[in-house]
Amino acid sequence: MTTTRTIDAYWRAANYLSVGQIYLLDNPLLTEPLRPEHIKPRLLGHWGTTPGLTFVFAHLNRIIGERGQNMIYIAGPGHGGPAAVAHAWLEGSYSERYPEVSQDVEGMRRLFRQFSFPGGVPSHVAPETPGSIHEGGELGYSLAHAYGAAFDNPDLVVACVVGDGEAETGPLATSWHSNKLLDPYRDGVVLPILHLNGYKIANPTVLARIPEAELLKLMEGYGYRPHVVGPSHEEMAATLDTVFDEIAAYKEGRAGRLPMIVLRTPKGWTGPREVDGLPVEGTWRAHQVPLSGVRDNPEHLAMLEAWMRSYRPEELFDADGRPVPAVLRAVPEGPLRMSASPHANGGELLAPLRLPDFREYAVQVKTPAAESSEPTRVLGAFLRDVIAANPHTFRLMGPDETASNRLQAVFETTTRAWNAGIEPTDEHLAAGGRVMEVLSEHLCQGWLEGYLLTGRHGLFNCYEAFVHIIDAMFNQHAKWLEASKRIPWRRPVASLNYLLSSHVWRQDHNGFSHQDPGFLDVVLNKKASVVRVYLPPDA
Amino acid sequence: MTTTRTIDAYWRAANYLSVGQIYLLDNPLLTEPLRPEHIKPRLLGHWGTTPGLTFVFAHLNRIIGERGQNMIYIAGPGHGGPAAVAHAWLEGSYSERYPEVSQDVEGMRRLFRQFSFPGGVPSHVAPETPGSIHEGGELGYSLAHAYGAAFDNPDLVVACVVGDGEAETGPLATSWHSNKLLDPYRDGVVLPILHLNGYKIANPTVLARIPEAELLKLMEGYGYRPHVVGPSHEEMAATLDTVFDEIAAYKEGRAGRLPMIVLRTPKGWTGPREVDGLPVEGTWRAHQVPLSGVRDNPEHLAMLEAWMRSYRPEELFDADGRPVPAVLRAVPEGPLRMSASPHANGGELLAPLRLPDFREYAVQVKTPAAESSEPTRVLGAFLRDVIAANPHTFRLMGPDETASNRLQAVFETTTRAWNAGIEPTDEHLAAGGRVMEVLSEHLCQGWLEGYLLTGRHGLFNCYEAFVHIIDAMFNQHAKWLEASKRIPWRRPVASLNYLLSSHVWRQDHNGFSHQDPGFLDVVLNKKASVVRVYLPPDA
Ligand SMILES: Cc1ncc(C[n+]2csc(CCOP(=O)(O)OP(=O)(O)O)c2C)c(N)n1
Ligand SMILES: Cc1ncc(C[n+]2csc(CCOP(=O)(O)OP(=O)(O)O)c2C)c(N)n1
Repeated sequence: MTTTRTIDAYWRAANYLSVGQIYLLDNPLLTEPLRPEHIKPRLLGHWGTTPGLTFVFAHLNRIIGERGQNMIYIAGPGHGGPAAVAHAWLEGSYSERYPEVSQDVEGMRRLFRQFSFPGGVPSHVAPETPGSIHEGGELGYSLAHAYGAAFDNPDLVVACVVGDGEAETGPLATSWHSNKLLDPYRDGVVLPILHLNGYKIANPTVLARIPEAELLKLMEGYGYRPHVVGPSHEEMAATLDTVFDEIAAYKEGRAGRLPMIVLRTPKGWTGPREVDGLPVEGTWRAHQVPLSGVRDNPEHLAMLEAWMRSYRPEELFDADGRPVPAVLRAVPEGPLRMSASPHANGGELLAPLRLPDFREYAVQVKTPAAESSEPTRVLGAFLRDVIAANPHTFRLMGPDETASNRLQAVFETTTRAWNAGIEPTDEHLAAGGRVMEVLSEHLCQGWLEGYLLTGRHGLFNCYEAFVHIIDAMFNQHAKWLEASKRIPWRRPVASLNYLLSSHVWRQDHNGFSHQDPGFLDVVLNKKASVVRVYLPPDA
Repeated sequence: MTTTRTIDAYWRAANYLSVGQIYLLDNPLLTEPLRPEHIKPRLLGHWGTTPGLTFVFAHLNRIIGERGQNMIYIAGPGHGGPAAVAHAWLEGSYSERYPEVSQDVEGMRRLFRQFSFPGGVPSHVAPETPGSIHEGGELGYSLAHAYGAAFDNPDLVVACVVGDGEAETGPLATSWHSNKLLDPYRDGVVLPILHLNGYKIANPTVLARIPEAELLKLMEGYGYRPHVVGPSHEEMAATLDTVFDEIAAYKEGRAGRLPMIVLRTPKGWTGPREVDGLPVEGTWRAHQVPLSGVRDNPEHLAMLEAWMRSYRPEELFDADGRPVPAVLRAVPEGPLRMSASPHANGGELLAPLRLPDFREYAVQVKTPAAESSEPTRVLGAFLRDVIAANPHTFRLMGPDETASNRLQAVFETTTRAWNAGIEPTDEHLAAGGRVMEVLSEHLCQGWLEGYLLTGRHGLFNCYEAFVHIIDAMFNQHAKWLEASKRIPWRRPVASLNYLLSSHVWRQDHNGFSHQDPGFLDVVLNKKASVVRVYLPPDA
């Protein structure tokens, strides 16, 4: 059994490694007193979110170990890059991917130095980070990605830390409702952990400043069983035990609602309480780098040293810089390590899509220009057969336009996914359906991204007029793909396919009420190695 | 006193006029039996949402009349264009704006014929529609627009119908939280009316298929007092009385939470029950045009005639086609008519922004290339003085980047708007602040659009990397501006100003973790009469 002592040791180690990444060029084990030349010339990174992220990692590891639970981790506040890197390094997967960053003092020095440094690693969670499918950067998509990863992975739990700032974004606010399209048996489970550290950049967050009773109603209204946890190992451990029992009950059909956790921690927890006479820990001032003058200000330098020593590194790492067994006791084995899960390197799991011969769907033309046929109706029949041939690895997403896009042949073989009330007049609605329809282009895109990044296939059908809604998401995904191509261990994932319909230049009905056709412009400014555009011959 | 009889008469008249717009070319008063040649050759429009929209209009008019309440109406399901046009025609404002569409039989014929017809009016709510500030088309922004309109309009109530489909979008899902930035005294009130007609295009909606108790928790979690109303005049009237008493109590500081209404109606209410053996009223089949074969299918033609006659037009319009007094009894006078409110033609209320002389903020350069200064810090001082000079008509929006964009001088004269918990360590946070910060670019953009369209001024400051998030919103707003320029009675509104910072080409820190700079591409494909881009001399 892992005790909270072990968890605490792991947590302290991860925090130590995170602070080291933000500040240190050298002297990684603090074997000598900190001197200005050990400090990076330009301090970058986000400390505030980090201790919460590491806290959750540490506790989930115990669950994985005890229950053999298949799990991945999505860090909504992906600006907490140091936390994810620290975790991967402690689990050994960092050194497996990057042998030069070995699990010893030399590797630790490299780990610290490379962070947010010219030629080094990004300050945000990125494709470079083992165990990640979720880019840090533009916030709002973590929970949609989490659900996308959970679909058709019945044994998987996707732990998803949602920042309370991130929770203010529109895409995140609607993502909670993804549970209405989740199939309890065929899909996995998403465990949202709302990280209520109270602040975004310079402001408090809305969800941290409404009465707790209101917050709990909100979560219940979204269809979850909320559990509030304070900044305490004991509370977190006990709650996770309950939560995973509830998940098991849900999977066995003994519970109708899945749990979620509201985790209250002080922002920048365990960091400096006060700097230059101003409160830092537990305020917005902890968001980025709490001590900014470390190289020039001896007082700041001393505070940094005291802060890092407060984790008692000598108890956590041996003289060679290797994490001691007490720290690693809760670390799972092999692919159960969240930083080494094949689900987070979806290309490893990717099986080619089984495609029927497209020639068989050709429209017979007896006399030229005598008959007409609807191209998307023909495509619908093809997609129907794609779905039938790939019953667990292909999904069709759309904001309720699948029928009006004339793809309805798909309903001959499948339904729309639905896990809420059904009435006698409904058609093609059932749990487990391969068609995902919700009036949110953000959810369609986010689910599909999560689904693809975990090694599956899909198509998003959308009116061209409204696809601009996901311009920014598309950009972020394209960036992920581009960066991944340069990372040898990232296996290629399936393409993100769009079918744009109801084009702006053939719009009798909605006409100018709809948007401009510029999505192609947004797409075409990417490299051909990342995107391809196919237009019909008469476009 | 207006009775529910009067309300019902108005409602029937509005429904009759809506159906007429969708179907009829001629014979507007049904003075002769309907014949195929009275029917439009191509049937377009959205019936399903219409009876709910007209129901709400009819009931709100009573409140306006009884309480002298200043109110505007935002139709989230703006595809219900016929409802808004019918309302404006009944209130007389349509004929004031478009004298050729007079309030008589000839005008009614024109009204019907022009709808969604070549050279006619759009099928969606648009700038052409009197009383509207909210484009029908891309869904999701109604509630953000409503809050934008309410800010700094202390006597205004903005009634906002939110489609239950629309409610699934991300921007709408987070818009509910706008109440946390509303000032009870200096701002007006938004009354959200969630129109639970159960369906979007071909699917049920999520909010209609979760248990009602869960829906109510969701609304309470968003910080509202929900009231559920069924499809009944009596229920709606009684609830509106309660709701406006609650609003009065809130304005007097006697209530902490504002009300909202959940209105359950059958989709396509009062339309055909069944068509070709399939249920229509109360199902998704009512979404667009329930009877599609009217010109060719005598049975459909007869059903349409029976449907239209079910409103008893002979009781509603006199022989000249003028609405009879019983229909108009509840229609308010002059600018209290929602279709004639100056707030919905904001240019009428627009006062020029008082700007200090920008030369006074010039940075003194003693020796060229010897000193450096931060341009946005200088701009911050300018904006501080703009805010001070325009205390009720200028707001600064941003996703919590105002300080990191170096505009913090504004906090010398104002605060961030906040109407939730405040802690001792908080800074520059108070109700009534002119700076609106929330981690949602959608809300920043939506609030600002609503604020501008009701005749005020503002600036949105945003990292360039993330402004793609509102590409589609920007497009829709640009479209509104472009269409408005061709409508003589639409007075010009103030420009939508962006300050883009943290440019992608000067990004040491977040660097490639952030997005592409293509927002300028999206903007520049609009006409110069609609957009202008200013770049710093060193760009
Ligand atoms: C869409 C978007 N807008 C703005 C930002 C800039 N930004 C970076 S971090 C941050 C605050 C995040 O707050 P939260 O999600 O609560 O994370 P934490 O407090 O744990 O750092 C903001 C606004 C962003 N990354 N993405
Ligand atoms: C962002 C966006 N995606 C898709 C559409 C296409 N669309 C038009 S109407 C509609 C359904 C709207 O449902 P709801 O808001 O409930 O309105 P109602 O049922 O009252 O018509 C959809 C999906 C749209 N207009 N905007």
